[in-house]
Amino acid sequence: MKRDIKILIERLRNIGYLSSINASLEWDQETYLPKKALDLRAVCISEMSGLIHNKFINLDAGGLLTKLHKSATSNKIKGKDKILILETWREYERARKLPEGFVRELSKTLSISREVWAKARKNNDFKAFLPSLQKIVKLMQRKAEYLGYKETPYDALIEEFEPGLTTTEVERTLNELKEFLIPFLKKVLALQSKVNGKKLRGKFPLQEQAEINEYIARTIGFDFEAGRLDVSTHPCTIGVHPHDCRITTRYKVDDVLHALGSTIHEVGHGMYEQGLPSEHFGTPLGQSISLGMHESQSRMWENQIGKSYEFWRHFYPHLQKKFPEPFKKVSLKDFHQILNRVEPSLIRTEADEVTYNLHIIIRFEIEKDMIEGKIKLRDLPDIWNAKYKQYIGVNVPNDSMGVLQDVHWSGGLIGYFPTYTLGNLYAAQFYKTMNNEIKNIPKLIEKGEFGPIKKWLRKNIHIKGKMHTASDLVKKITGEKLNSRYFQEYLIEKYGK
Amino acid sequence: MKRDIKILIERLRNIGYLSSINASLEWDQETYLPKKALDLRAVCISEMSGLIHNKFINLDAGGLLTKLHKSATSNKIKGKDKILILETWREYERARKLPEGFVRELSKTLSISREVWAKARKNNDFKAFLPSLQKIVKLMQRKAEYLGYKETPYDALIEEFEPGLTTTEVERTLNELKEFLIPFLKKVLALQSKVNGKKLRGKFPLQEQAEINEYIARTIGFDFEAGRLDVSTHPCTIGVHPHDCRITTRYKVDDVLHALGSTIHEVGHGMYEQGLPSEHFGTPLGQSISLGMHESQSRMWENQIGKSYEFWRHFYPHLQKKFPEPFKKVSLKDFHQILNRVEPSLIRTEADEVTYNLHIIIRFEIEKDMIEGKIKLRDLPDIWNAKYKQYIGVNVPNDSMGVLQDVHWSGGLIGYFPTYTLGNLYAAQFYKTMNNEIKNIPKLIEKGEFGPIKKWLRKNIHIKGKMHTASDLVKKITGEKLNSRYFQEYLIEKYGK
Repeated sequence: MKRDIKILIERLRNIGYLSSINASLEWDQETYLPKKALDLRAVCISEMSGLIHNKFINLDAGGLLTKLHKSATSNKIKGKDKILILETWREYERARKLPEGFVRELSKTLSISREVWAKARKNNDFKAFLPSLQKIVKLMQRKAEYLGYKETPYDALIEEFEPGLTTTEVERTLNELKEFLIPFLKKVLALQSKVNGKKLRGKFPLQEQAEINEYIARTIGFDFEAGRLDVSTHPCTIGVHPHDCRITTRYKVDDVLHALGSTIHEVGHGMYEQGLPSEHFGTPLGQSISLGMHESQSRMWENQIGKSYEFWRHFYPHLQKKFPEPFKKVSLKDFHQILNRVEPSLIRTEADEVTYNLHIIIRFEIEKDMIEGKIKLRDLPDIWNAKYKQYIGVNVPNDSMGVLQDVHWSGGLIGYFPTYTLGNLYAAQFYKTMNNEIKNIPKLIEKGEFGPIKKWLRKNIHIKGKMHTASDLVKKITGEKLNSRYFQEYLIEKYGK
Repeated sequence: MKRDIKILIERLRNIGYLSSINASLEWDQETYLPKKALDLRAVCISEMSGLIHNKFINLDAGGLLTKLHKSATSNKIKGKDKILILETWREYERARKLPEGFVRELSKTLSISREVWAKARKNNDFKAFLPSLQKIVKLMQRKAEYLGYKETPYDALIEEFEPGLTTTEVERTLNELKEFLIPFLKKVLALQSKVNGKKLRGKFPLQEQAEINEYIARTIGFDFEAGRLDVSTHPCTIGVHPHDCRITTRYKVDDVLHALGSTIHEVGHGMYEQGLPSEHFGTPLGQSISLGMHESQSRMWENQIGKSYEFWRHFYPHLQKKFPEPFKKVSLKDFHQILNRVEPSLIRTEADEVTYNLHIIIRFEIEKDMIEGKIKLRDLPDIWNAKYKQYIGVNVPNDSMGVLQDVHWSGGLIGYFPTYTLGNLYAAQFYKTMNNEIKNIPKLIEKGEFGPIKKWLRKNIHIKGKMHTASDLVKKITGEKLNSRYFQEYLIEKYGK
């Protein structure tokens, strides 16, 4: 048995290396790839993906995985090994359930859809994207049928991003949050002082922005010996290996806050990747739990920590020194208020902490209905715009800033959006517990001592790999299951006065 | 038959993609890889190399290659297809002749030797490197036996880098050159005016150096849409694909000429890679001919063109504008003289055009004797130092600046050094012909019009892939076989007055 487990781990690690090669290629594509090499890169990534898929399907060669799976379910194998086997089996089963022809059809459709979407968004032409979306939704429905589900096909899709979570639970949590957020937003808007955001605009040379972004990333705990910070069109984190995590940000010459927010967010993701146990590389025990859990790390650093008054008590002098114009004339208090300004808007990625989850709730409600066949896709713009009016109070002037704004659906990422909100909720709940366990966190932050926070996250979350499901880990760490109350309390404390 | 050829090309192209992935990983390792990821990268590259090797050995699956090889040798297949098959066969045979155990032993020995050498060089301790070198030489002798040869085992080793060339030919050519160079060097040193190189030292911020290096690279013809220029410890060219060629340079803050020379050299290599026919990617028809031919491209741009008076008539004003200190005070004539200063020295990579090939001749004579077992390896420092005194007239103060200076032997690169000199000779011979075929090249250079030169090189060399051997191509282009006379004439013309 021991020998079989060893063989399985070797097979998984081998797949891990190939996957990390693909991750390196993807990073290169986001950052430094010459323009004319795009086609070549697509072919190379697809070649590697094919190799990886074959090796994955081959995990059971000689009946190895089937045998181990039997021993694990009958409790002949226990502990870490059992988890390793069951998690591997879960993913293997999912992969095996999808017929090869379907996978090829899906991948072909998606690679075309992305371009169709990009063009449609550019031209503000939802109808041009509609046929692609119809195809994708049908394929996703078929995917759910292949994979199987209990209550709704949407369950099968969530499973990919947040294993173990059901649509019913998501719905309950998001409804609860919605009930709170809609009236709360109105209250905050009424209370909020009028601080002019324009004060913070200026000319911020990229080299100097890069310096302060690196400085903050390093200070809060990103390990530059095991990672890099570069520039890409869409900020992202690519975890090649715990010893090689590549994060990116994007600089705007007239807005220094734009990159700072992205950088701190990606550092949160990056520290999760760097904190995974490298001795389990390639196996589930060396992988992050779920997208929601990942997002909890990025959002906690970005918001709970990175938008706190204490954080900027520490870093604002650095920012002022780097860019006397305009910051010498802006008080820390004003800066902090501007940074946390709540403002209903159209674009999810630029939303503040109060409205952000309303953006997600809208997408969740719509995509669940799409997958369950309850709405006609051609009505999407109307449905979208009505919800934006109702939940956030804004009028959507065109589909480019509305239903076409996100890349996700064109990439087949349905069931993904809820993980953004889950991340916010996990973050608030963890942060509450962390504050009970570490003395005077605000003081530590103010002094620029981020080590204890990183250590707590590493010990409780990062180093665990996939030892627990997200919901088990939340219970284990915080003593209760996921509860949106902590996020609500966080918002009330921060914005309600 | 047509169908078999198509299958062979598909197999080769597939190997090409995997090799290009490895090239991307190697580039990343030279430029941006985080420190802690070095071990990971070594594993990934070795995984990929294993995959590539297996696919290469598998080229003959179903007897495909054997069958095609028979048809090609019996002239049932002709033209390009014949060349493609014979070249593939040649490499396949070489790969097949090496037993797997030997390949593994060699690779293991080399990966250790590199580090041993680096440490020995640092500590000026030849004895520490001696056991590694002894192992390597023995392995190389075994390699030669496996591969087979006609006259000397050194033939089998040269074949890897300069296919078709024999030791006898190399020896004849290098002896001829030596007879010329030793007295010529003395003459040049006597004639040379005393220009002080120190004048050109200064403070050159890296960002501004990067700008002018990029500007020159772009102007002389490097395609930045199909490549990049970055920084690495050792300048190099990594041809991922004709659409993706990565060159690197190295900046010294007090010496702007250091990077410029490297950049122009690598641009020469890079344009060869970018000029290969992408439709033949992965097959011999899409590959460069030999190391010597590659070096002819880099050296022609670096020396014949990049150190010419006309080149700097064009670019010197740019350099002066970028760095008024010290260049405003240095006349173009003085600058050009300093750039071309001949000075016997210890280090090959920093040698001028006159002494450079003497450095190579010394290495060739020594490594040939090593492989033929004519010298005792422990005597290498004495042999080395005596030759440096005799050929170049310098005393070697220590082995770090002597026999330990180059990385090649520790990496098993024996038979490689002669290609550097071949490159210089090809370059001079080609340049002579080019000057007969294109009107007034110096005038074009002075005007910054490098297009016709690039076009000529592309048409005559780059686009040909491996259609010809190096010696056939030289004959085809210049009307005669390789002749060191052209290089001698070039030196006499440039330095002899």
